[in-house]
This record gives sequence, C-alpha cells and structure tokens, in this order.
Amino acid sequence: MERLESMLKKNEEFVAKGEGKKFKASKFSNKNMLVITCMDARLIKMLPEALDLKNGDANIIKTAGALVCAKSENVLRSILVSVYELGVEEIFVVGHYDCGMAGFCCDNLLEKWKDRSDIQQGVQQLSNEGVNFERWLKGFDHVEDSVKDSVSFLHEYPLLPQGIKIHGLIINPEDGRVDHVTSLTKEEKIERTF
Amino acid sequence: MERLESMLKKNEEFVAKGEGKKFKASKFSNKNMLVITCMDARLIKMLPEALDLKNGDANIIKTAGALVCAKSENVLRSILVSVYELGVEEIFVVGHYDCGMAGFCCDNLLEKWKDRSDIQQGVQQLSNEGVNFERWLKGFDHVEDSVKDSVSFLHEYPLLPQGIKIHGLIINPEDGRVDHVTSLTKEEKIERTF
Repeated sequence: MERLESMLKKNEEFVAKGEGKKFKASKFSNKNMLVITCMDARLIKMLPEALDLKNGDANIIKTAGALVCAKSENVLRSILVSVYELGVEEIFVVGHYDCGMAGFCCDNLLEKWKDRSDIQQGVQQLSNEGVNFERWLKGFDHVEDSVKDSVSFLHEYPLLPQGIKIHGLIINPEDGRVDHVTSLTKEEKIERTF
Repeated sequence: MERLESMLKKNEEFVAKGEGKKFKASKFSNKNMLVITCMDARLIKMLPEALDLKNGDANIIKTAGALVCAKSENVLRSILVSVYELGVEEIFVVGHYDCGMAGFCCDNLLEKWKDRSDIQQGVQQLSNEGVNFERWLKGFDHVEDSVKDSVSFLHEYPLLPQGIKIHGLIINPEDGRVDHVTSLTKEEKIERTF
C-alpha cells in the first residue's frame, strides 16, 4: 500500500498548494479534437508537449497500440461520446515507433501462462465463454499500416458524421518527432498524404 | 487541415529545440503501475500532476468513464500487456467527478441521430450486425459505484495473477483532489476502505 499512501500524501500537498487550479479547463475540448493513442509510459508528458496540447485542449483515448477496429467497443463508445456530446470535429490516431504491440500476438502471453495453473484455468474458462484468444490478443506488423488501418476503419464507420476529419500520425518516443501518415475527411473516399 | 499544419509546425520547433529529449524514459513503467482513467480533456495534464506521475512512470489507459467490464476488449488486452509484458504490479482505476458518462445512456445519442438519415442507416446496419445499442452505449449512475464495479471486476478477472493490487480512486477535475474509494489485492476477497 506504500505507493498509494505516498501518492495520496503528495496529492494532499498538491491540492493544498492550489496547484490543480492552474489546470482548470472546460470538459468541452478547446480544440474540438480527439487523440487516440497508446498507453505507453513514455507518452504521458511527451505526447501533450509534442502535439502542443494544453489541459482541456483534447479528449484523449489511450489503448495498447492505438488500435481501432470493429471490436473496439470502449474506444468506439468513447469516440461517439466525444463527437456527439463534446464537440469533437477532428480525430488524430497517433501510433508510435517502438510500440510493444508491433509483433505482438497471443503466443507471447500463452507461453508465459503455460506453467501457471491458476491462469490456465482462466484461459479455459474464457475459451469456454467464447473468447477467441488468437483474434483478441493481436497487435500489428508495422505501425504505419496499423495507423492507416485504424484511420480507414474510422473513415468507413457508419456512425461518424460527414465532414469529420481523421488523421494518422506516428510519434517517436525518443525525441517527440511526429510523422504524418495519412488524412481522410469523411466525405472523401481517396486516401492521400498531406 | 489548419490544425494539423500548425501542429506539425510546432512539433518541428519542439524537436529542433530538443524539448522531447527532456522526457526520455523507458517503456517499462518506472513505478510498475497502470492507471485506467477517462478521456476527459481536463485530465491531460491535471491527472499526471495530481498523481505525481513523471514521463515513464506508468502505463495509462484512457476510455470514456474509466469503465472496465467483460466486454472491454481493448482495455483488457491493454491490461494484460501491461501486467505480463511491461512489469505492472498495481492497477489504479481513476474515475472523476462531473464525468460525462454519469447518467449517460443510448437515448442521448439515439435522440441526436433521429433526424439524420445517414446515421440512421448506420444504426440499422450495426443493429443488423448484432450490435446492442442499449447495452453498449451505457454509462453509470454514480461514479463511486462505477469505480467499485470496475475494481471488483478486475479483482475477479481470471487472467490477472495473484498478488496484483487494484485501487479505485476518484479525481476532482476542478482542483485535482484524489479520493480513495477502495483497494483490493487479488488474493483478498473482502472489499475494504483504506
């Protein structure tokens, strides 16, 4: 419990000093934008600085590999809430180089679990409930292709309104450099580079 | 395309000045922790500061409402990768007050879509594909209950190892105050407050 105790103690000081008030913002994204990126620990402060995002500027969804597909239930719900409830007009899918989801597949985990009887029981239970590990625990081969796939998927997604812009970017977690991969606007059907 | 152009221009300056190098970190969470929180625009800089997180300290998953349940495919995959590939030993579910998912239900969106024929077609298409809008587009009544539910769900989740600690917190986006709601360790079965 040491981590929690120390975190709460530091938080008390943070609040007492009024530090939090410096970040006060509206829940409606100032820049009418949504960023979908990875959970990677190197992006916590790097990404907002590299993309020039202040507190309140954007909704940010984070999920391993910044992957979006038809099965991304939480991500798609979050996108719909952002677009229809919070005024988002532009979506940025931001993958990153050296991502743990590059080359990742279910074998990576199944191998780690093979000698653990408690987890093996869990695997069996979820398999019985219909979970398809191979389809579910899947990363990508190349981050560029993955970002393009997510952008294309969103471009075709039938619940997003005409006019919405969807960009694909890749950030380098070493120096914060951002590369532009693709941009599509919902009424356009032809992919193009910027 | 103005937002993208201006963002890429600022990014060039950022990289040229070597600003990104200040944030250099390992992809393995320094604090062996994972934070699951909301996509809310007010949390971009507020949350890392309020929880004393430096770049590289934690994996961070962001999804509307910080909701985790059996259907949270992306979130669960991200958690498994964090725990088994990136050394995470402690999970913090961090909901927030004034969350857009409090009181949210599918009617909020269905009402907005009712006069839009393009989106109505999409609703019909996804319904035909088996999407259950009522179950999918659902928030929660009270953030405390929702955080407790997510913590309990993870505590029972059969693919998480014994010994892993799961905490439930709520952050106030006005001043950054963090309230502790619940903590469970995977071998414990009794919920308790700290």
